[in-house]
Amino acid sequence: MTQPEFRRDPLHNAWVVFAPERQRRPQDFAAAVLQSGTLDPFAEGNERLTPPEVYALRSEKSKPNEPGWRVRVVPNRYPAMRIEGQLEASPSGLYDRLTGIGAHEVIIETPDGALALEELSVPAIAEVFFSYQSRMIDLDKDSRFQQIYVFKNVGPSAGASLVHAHSQLVALPLVPPFVEGKLNRAREHYVTKQRSLFSDILHTEKAEATRLVAENDSYHLFCPFASRFPFELAIFPKRHQPDYSMCTSVELHDLAEVVQFALKRLNAVLEKPGYNLLLHTAPLRRPQTERFASTRYDYSWHVEIVPRFNSFAGFEIGLGTYINTVIPEDAARFLRGEVQT
Amino acid sequence: MTQPEFRRDPLHNAWVVFAPERQRRPQDFAAAVLQSGTLDPFAEGNERLTPPEVYALRSEKSKPNEPGWRVRVVPNRYPAMRIEGQLEASPSGLYDRLTGIGAHEVIIETPDGALALEELSVPAIAEVFFSYQSRMIDLDKDSRFQQIYVFKNVGPSAGASLVHAHSQLVALPLVPPFVEGKLNRAREHYVTKQRSLFSDILHTEKAEATRLVAENDSYHLFCPFASRFPFELAIFPKRHQPDYSMCTSVELHDLAEVVQFALKRLNAVLEKPGYNLLLHTAPLRRPQTERFASTRYDYSWHVEIVPRFNSFAGFEIGLGTYINTVIPEDAARFLRGEVQT
Repeated sequence: MTQPEFRRDPLHNAWVVFAPERQRRPQDFAAAVLQSGTLDPFAEGNERLTPPEVYALRSEKSKPNEPGWRVRVVPNRYPAMRIEGQLEASPSGLYDRLTGIGAHEVIIETPDGALALEELSVPAIAEVFFSYQSRMIDLDKDSRFQQIYVFKNVGPSAGASLVHAHSQLVALPLVPPFVEGKLNRAREHYVTKQRSLFSDILHTEKAEATRLVAENDSYHLFCPFASRFPFELAIFPKRHQPDYSMCTSVELHDLAEVVQFALKRLNAVLEKPGYNLLLHTAPLRRPQTERFASTRYDYSWHVEIVPRFNSFAGFEIGLGTYINTVIPEDAARFLRGEVQT
Repeated sequence: MTQPEFRRDPLHNAWVVFAPERQRRPQDFAAAVLQSGTLDPFAEGNERLTPPEVYALRSEKSKPNEPGWRVRVVPNRYPAMRIEGQLEASPSGLYDRLTGIGAHEVIIETPDGALALEELSVPAIAEVFFSYQSRMIDLDKDSRFQQIYVFKNVGPSAGASLVHAHSQLVALPLVPPFVEGKLNRAREHYVTKQRSLFSDILHTEKAEATRLVAENDSYHLFCPFASRFPFELAIFPKRHQPDYSMCTSVELHDLAEVVQFALKRLNAVLEKPGYNLLLHTAPLRRPQTERFASTRYDYSWHVEIVPRFNSFAGFEIGLGTYINTVIPEDAARFLRGEVQT
């Protein structure tokens, strides 16, 4: 097999992307080693070291794939999926196969490899979040895609292989069962209660207040009740909407502000931990049934930030259950600055 | 909170064990460092360094908590859950709480800290697997428990914090939704087809043969069709039964043989990778409904062995989808010895 492929088995019901090309990455089958000291492929002036850009925010007089950009989006050099080709789903007896079609892009958040995302100005961070939107709106035109997801890996404990600040965007030809589970639970809640689960969680968090960390005009930042990771954070928008790409520029500015605050507080309390930032948004298109219409009302896009200290071990992998050593009420007190570390 | 507690939120539907006591473990909030060179608490002669043993296979003239044992089971010094106390489930508005009752035991597989499990003789490995059974049968008497699970973490990449060969057993007061998902899919398959999903998977694997690695009188060893991890292995028993504790001594001997073979082949092909070994068995007790009776026929205990190279990153955590760089047909050819590394 040289083509990437999605596979599913009926016992685990998880899709797995088989991406043989990624095996060329140096850190495979070895501890991840951060590439610092070597030539930075994401730095300004090194544009030739990446595949040609698909999008950039750059000065008017600059040219594509040359210096002068503020945010730059390029295809992943080691993509898990391929953009070219026909989407073909095929049964294989008990099993399922789907061609490994998808987009896998890298959002380079700054030309300066020495800066972390939270060290940029709020307007510069907002430009990164605007770039996510622009890519989503563009990829939405490709009818092969069902789900777009943006994530950021920082530090080796979180799976990062490059130091230069970047995030990744994937467009998938399926809605993963894990995501479908969240959508279904949100929908069931809506059908039963005639209220959004996301609004109800925010209502509870505001009423109990013990897990709230901060808020601004557009967002609440809190430590979730059943946080899977120590010092896990969630960002829920106050204005309920399923699609991240529908955010206004004010909401992007406010998101930049709350993400910067969250990362700075994590850095202060935990001494620059590795972390993943996860941006969840509704599926792109659904059959035009009542189910579709409802899903769009009952789901809200949201952000999770999960600091990463321990590996997933046999307990987590076999049970889908997590062990967390820090209760979220304690984490919130540290992050609010009420307790000194 | 000083008592451990299970929590669930309605969006993720995953139970999280909050275990503040484990925070005293040295590797928390830092990269896991294997304790070699320091005093080995699991070595023969150091029995005083562990909590008193709950079970041991030892020479007739030896006494508990003294040398003379071959396999020794002790409570985990840093338990995720506590064995003492009343099981109390309580609603908390949108959220769920359950007291963190549970057993968390360590099975010390050999008195000799220099030996890996696969370096023991087949009868000695069978004694380790017999000890799992003995502990399951004992803990089954405690009506607070719903699910027993055994796992083994080897190497820092797999979450191990001690070098000395050991496995862990947990008895939980709930069936995790991830496990319930597997049970439900197996049951649906049985109800629809009147055949076990596990038997059907074995039938397919034997027919296609490309992912088979080995077999003996009691087991098939194969690389699953949708392997989540490179070189992942599954061991399915030929005699279909839900409960691992119902295995005969011949079946335990044969399991020791196939596990030893699998680990030796992984060591040869991948140079002693970190790995998790996961032992899945049916829930302990279910309401006496038709559902229960059916679940007991349609489910089969099984073992998974998953080598661990990369951290879970933002892609896996947010989507529940895995990227695997090695197709199982290739992994099986390496493990069968048809291709040299």
